[in-house]
Amino acid sequence: MRLTVYSDFALRLMMYLCLNHDRLSTISEVAEAYDISKAHLMKITNELGQKGLVETVRGRQGGMRLGKSASAISVGEIVRACEPDFAIVPCFEAKGAVVCVIQPACVLKRALAAATAAFLETLDGYTLADLVRPTVPLRSLLGLDSSTSGLAAH
Amino acid sequence: MRLTVYSDFALRLMMYLCLNHDRLSTISEVAEAYDISKAHLMKITNELGQKGLVETVRGRQGGMRLGKSASAISVGEIVRACEPDFAIVPCFEAKGAVVCVIQPACVLKRALAAATAAFLETLDGYTLADLVRPTVPLRSLLGLDSSTSGLAAH
Repeated sequence: MRLTVYSDFALRLMMYLCLNHDRLSTISEVAEAYDISKAHLMKITNELGQKGLVETVRGRQGGMRLGKSASAISVGEIVRACEPDFAIVPCFEAKGAVVCVIQPACVLKRALAAATAAFLETLDGYTLADLVRPTVPLRSLLGLDSSTSGLAAH
Repeated sequence: MRLTVYSDFALRLMMYLCLNHDRLSTISEVAEAYDISKAHLMKITNELGQKGLVETVRGRQGGMRLGKSASAISVGEIVRACEPDFAIVPCFEAKGAVVCVIQPACVLKRALAAATAAFLETLDGYTLADLVRPTVPLRSLLGLDSSTSGLAAH
């Protein structure tokens, strides 16, 4: 059972923006901090921007920040914004290309849908603010030392 | 978010064995009924056999049947038996090849582990017997008409 790389990267991006809340962050620095794909991060930033979870400031001094308070963003909200679907098994896919012969009478789908809902409801119980509680070690691991913060504060 | 093909096929195999409980089933007939890979089903049958969920009878008249009563097998048990891991994000992988810089102080892992547990607990609430309640339509969709049942009854 896996989340897509988009949710994984989105959660890490949002944590970074939260930990670096006193200034704007760039896609390049987030990609470098986590050693992950810049192209994927750009796609995710667009997606999160459309959902109001990330705010982008254009221009040479530009960058991004959280679209709303970290305590108002649930982990479930981030995952819902990024997972292309919750097709836990192929027959859940919207396009319906893959079919299963028992689909018309299948009860398993109901069980899997309930389990997926329980998964997301649990994530709704955590906010982005909860994820960054050990602020000092997390900032340190991401190279966000206090000495560099505030340089481009807004 | 997806389950692997192994869980998907295992759930369908177990439903077939349950619906065809009055005789032994072969891998070939299950593969044909669902139009799915025989090779994958063989691998899954071995796995489920080791976990006591499927019982195999050798020989020319051989085949397989449920290893215990359908009402004693939960959907969660089947999924736990078949998913290679519950690495919802890469850092959960046992081999630990993929690392994330914030791993030492990450709280997100706890949230995702709790969500995965909630997913499986929900599936524990359903038994295999629950999944085959609409017996007549399911048997019909799988080509298990009453006329063919009992031919190789044990």
